[in-house]
Order: sequence, then structure tokens, then C-alpha cells
Amino acid sequence: MQPELADAPFLQACRRERPDHTPVWFMRQAGRALPEYRKLREGIAMLDACRAPDMIAEITLQPVRRFGVDAAILFSDIVLPLVAIGLDIDIVPGVGPVVGEPVRDRAGLAGLRPLGAGDVDYVTEAVGILVRELGATPLIGFAGAPFTLASYLVEGGPSRTHLHTKALMYSDEALWHDLLDRLADISAAYLATQVAAGASAVQLFDSWVGALDEADYRRYVMPHSAKVLGSPALAGVPRIHFGVNTGELLSAMGEAGADVVGVDWRLGLDEATRRIGPDRAVQGNLDPAALFAPPAVLEEKVRDVCARGAKAPGHVFNLGHGVMPETDPGVLARVVEIVHDQ
Amino acid sequence: MQPELADAPFLQACRRERPDHTPVWFMRQAGRALPEYRKLREGIAMLDACRAPDMIAEITLQPVRRFGVDAAILFSDIVLPLVAIGLDIDIVPGVGPVVGEPVRDRAGLAGLRPLGAGDVDYVTEAVGILVRELGATPLIGFAGAPFTLASYLVEGGPSRTHLHTKALMYSDEALWHDLLDRLADISAAYLATQVAAGASAVQLFDSWVGALDEADYRRYVMPHSAKVLGSPALAGVPRIHFGVNTGELLSAMGEAGADVVGVDWRLGLDEATRRIGPDRAVQGNLDPAALFAPPAVLEEKVRDVCARGAKAPGHVFNLGHGVMPETDPGVLARVVEIVHDQ
Repeated sequence: MQPELADAPFLQACRRERPDHTPVWFMRQAGRALPEYRKLREGIAMLDACRAPDMIAEITLQPVRRFGVDAAILFSDIVLPLVAIGLDIDIVPGVGPVVGEPVRDRAGLAGLRPLGAGDVDYVTEAVGILVRELGATPLIGFAGAPFTLASYLVEGGPSRTHLHTKALMYSDEALWHDLLDRLADISAAYLATQVAAGASAVQLFDSWVGALDEADYRRYVMPHSAKVLGSPALAGVPRIHFGVNTGELLSAMGEAGADVVGVDWRLGLDEATRRIGPDRAVQGNLDPAALFAPPAVLEEKVRDVCARGAKAPGHVFNLGHGVMPETDPGVLARVVEIVHDQ
Repeated sequence: MQPELADAPFLQACRRERPDHTPVWFMRQAGRALPEYRKLREGIAMLDACRAPDMIAEITLQPVRRFGVDAAILFSDIVLPLVAIGLDIDIVPGVGPVVGEPVRDRAGLAGLRPLGAGDVDYVTEAVGILVRELGATPLIGFAGAPFTLASYLVEGGPSRTHLHTKALMYSDEALWHDLLDRLADISAAYLATQVAAGASAVQLFDSWVGALDEADYRRYVMPHSAKVLGSPALAGVPRIHFGVNTGELLSAMGEAGADVVGVDWRLGLDEATRRIGPDRAVQGNLDPAALFAPPAVLEEKVRDVCARGAKAPGHVFNLGHGVMPETDPGVLARVVEIVHDQ
């Protein structure tokens, strides 16, 4: 890794060093809030866009060019590796991933083969392009965590209650652990591919795990997330671990093997740090809805996040969840400025 | 109030006395999980059912007969008082409340007139029937809290992000407070009607307020919820205050004037009590999805809730959110038995 990249503020903050400014990037910074993204995606299905190296690279670069954020994140979708091993999953606009045959019994595991070296060549190629283009700006690779992937597979799509997922988890613990173990291997292999191709950090998204209490998290989920995060292929790159509604799980999610714990906007980063402890940095946590506030209100909220984040051993500024499609890109640019001026 | 009712275990627990068994009821205990409910509702729209005194009474009584729960809760819907003052709101099956003209400016306040004495006569009549039928079993009245009602009105229906609601709150604080003040008066009047007719406790549902952080809650919401809970008409009846995803708000929700703070399943009642303090009882908090677990797992979870609840100054057993329609009523009966046997 070139020295300028190795010392990028984002990577310094992940390592709990003190960069000269607080680094900032936004979850879903590449996406529907950007007119140049909407133009590029016109008539192209999500999964097709995620499998075209030039398109992945261009979409990933758009927010870096526009906002001067401190990190890029690979444009992809968390179900992509599941599609890559041949599962029948479509991403339906306005709905999300829809699974042809939900996995609810042992027979359903049959399709969950390991992710092989050649299954995501388009990702390897895209990361190669990006690393050249990005220079000193780090590229974050990402994958869905075992619980969140399992929820999509078991429910058959997005769910508010995760009812079938929890029912399976409670009813057939052996099958559940088999399922999550396979998903952990797939996530780990997907992240390893991105790191091998040059990604300088990874984020494991456990978007839905906040539906569990801590005891269930530790029993049914944590060992599998720990397997992903502890994968030897990830040694040496910062690992970020994020979910929403995870205020009660922050400590356990850190223990699972994260260098940086992502925090949603429901609790301050100072309190989050109290729960997580001194050995990990935090990422977050402006409410994405605050981007719709008037400038003075927004600025006060951004400064508050920075002030609380300054009490953490390391702070990567981000939103507490993804950028909403209705967001004005000019407001995101303004947030980058405010954060960099702190 | 007859002495046997005044000393009902549910009311004792709310008052932080020690009843001879832990009282239990379930949010949405009257509803689609019960075959007798589905039969009665066949071909009858939700809002029509909520305005027919005999139907309200019968549906409210069904779970008391079936499960021997320690309290009944009036069958209604949180948007009912808004319908009663003439707003154009329909409850669409599978969607929820849909508002004809979302409220997003000052002109939108015009329709929000006070709830008058005669606007909900069917509720007064239903409560009268219920108090006679229920005898020593307390009836809980309920209303939606100002924030949650505002979210429906501003979004025009259920929302995952509450984007328009928060945008209005941040952008026009004076209008926001006017809106919530009117909604507080409506909620307070609706609860007062139920108490005047004989309800022996009330629950204020702030279902969606967990979308806010504590600072925003205290600034934009708490004064209005406090106005409802502090309403003189409610003096002397226990006031329960509940929302989901409110782990970081529990202390403030108690301070708003609750005797009992409802807790979702994400944190233990012992930790919830630590946050809320010794002056209030707690209600909760079995994960509604645990009702789909095998008997041994379910029993362990119910016992764990009871054990943690025993550390609170008062404990009303409940779920951490409403009964899901797919729930087996036999399992709810079993939970009542386990709780009563502790």
C-alpha cells in the first residue's frame, strides 16, 4: 500500500490514531440521491449494475468526485454473493431482495455452496480499477453479515418482524447454526476477494440484527459474525461492524471482532463509546433525516456528533443509516465541509 | 370503584405494590390471532367495528374469557379520535391508516378541532358495558401519543423513515408545537372520556417515537406527551407509556408522567429499571416472536422476563410489542399460566 493511502485520515481513525481532520463518508453515498447515478442506472437492473466492472467503478467514484469524502465504498448489494452462487434472488425496485424459494428446512441449505474464486470476477476487476483511480482515498469493501443474509433467505424478502427467521432459530438450532456457518463462509470469502483485490477496509453490515436482544445475539449470531470478522484473509485491514437499532448490542458487536463499531443515531457516540469500551473506534451517527433540516439545525447536529465522537478513541463520521433517495446532494457536500472544518 | 377491582393484581403492580401474582395482559390481545375475532370482523371494516359499542365490548372481552388475562384493553385504533373529529382517514387492511390529505403546513391544522363530549359516544357506551361485564378485571383505556399521531398525519400513512415528520419538526418548530399541542388535547380528551366512563388505567402508545434520539424527544415531543399524561382528568388512574425502539428514551418517557413504562424486548427489564429509576413500574417485555419458539425455549424466556421484572419496583407482564396475527392462541394461554405460576 502506498504511504499516502496507508496514512489516509479514514484509516488512521479506524486505527485509533489522530488524523488531522475527522474523516467522513456516508452509507449509500453512491446511489439514488445523485442525479449522475440515476442517469447511469436508467434501464439497468440493480443486479446487472452490480456485475458490470466499469459500472461498479463509476458509481463507486461518483460520490468521491462530488463530495470529497474520505473513503469510497464498493457499489454492490448485500445479496450479491448469494446471487453469485446461483440462488434465485431478484432485487425488486421499491421492495428489496426477493428470494424465489425461502430457506426454511435442511433441504434449503443445499443451494448454499461456498463462494469460489471465480464467482465474482467482476468485483475483483472493479476493485482493481477503483484502487488505481482512487489513489490515496481508501476503498471500503463490504458484505452482509450472516444474520441479515439469513433473514432475507428465510423470510423470502425484507421483513419487519423477522418472524420466520426467529422461529427457525428457536426451533432448530442445529439447522440455524449450519445455515449461519455457510453464510459466514460466503461473507468471509466475499470480503477476502475484495481485500485481495486491494480494498483497504471492510464493513460487515448486520442491518437487521437489532431485532434481537443481547442474549439471543450472543447465542445465535455472534459466533458466526466473529468467524467472518476473524477470517485470516482480513488480518491487517480495519473491520467496521454496523447495524441499526443495535444500541443494546454495541458491546457484543465490538467483541465479535470489529475495529470500528457503527452506531445508529439513537444514542450519542459518547454513550456508545461507554458501552463499547476504549479498544475500538466508532462510526456514525447523524440521523439521515437531519439532512432535511434547515442549515442552522443541521450544522448544530453535525457539530454535536463531532463533539461526542471526539470523546471516542477514534471517530469516522457517517450517518446513522443510509442516505435516503430524497436527499439533496448539496446538503451532503455541506456536511463534509462542516466535518472537515471541526 | 369496587374494592375487588381496586385491589386487582394489575392495578397493584402499576402502583408498585406487591400483588400475589404477576399480572399479565398482551398488547393486541384482542385481534387477528383469535378465530372468534376473525369471525366477528368478517365483512366489517376496522373503523366500523371501532364505532359499534356491542362489537367493541365483545372484541375487548374475547381475550379475557379465553386467556384469563389480568386486564382488558379497549378495542379501538389509535387514529379513531382523529376520525371522530372528521379527518379523512381510512384503515386499509395490510397497510394501516391512510390519510386523505397529509398535514404539512399551517392550513393543515384547520381540521384539527378539539374532541368534543359527544364525538365518541360509542366509546362511552362500550366502556359502560365493559365495566359491568368485567367486574373485578380492570379495563385499560388507550390513545395514541402526539408524536405517533403526528407521524400518521404528516406522512399520510405508516412510514419507516418518518422523513416528512422530522423535516417538518426541524423546519417549522412553531407549527410543529401547534400540531402536537392540538393532538395532545385530542389524546387527553379521548383518554378522559374513557376514564370518565369507567376505565381503571390508561396506556399512551407512542409507537414510533423510538425513531428520535433523546435530545429531539425532550425538545419536540416530551412536553406534549407530558400534557396528556398530566391531564387532571387522569389523576388517580395508572398511566402506562409505551413505544418500540425506545431503549434510549425510557428515562425521559417516565419523566413525561408515566406510572408504568412499557419496554420492548431489546433490553432486559432489570437494565430498563436501572434507566427508569425506582419511582415507576415497568411493563413488558417478551419478544412477540418468542411465541413461535418450542415450549421449552418459550418457557425459559418467559421465566427470564419474570426474573428480571422481579427486580423492578412493579412489573406488569406483557409482550415487547403487539401479538402478531400468526400467533397460536394456545401459546398465549400457556404464557399466562407460566407467568401466574411464578
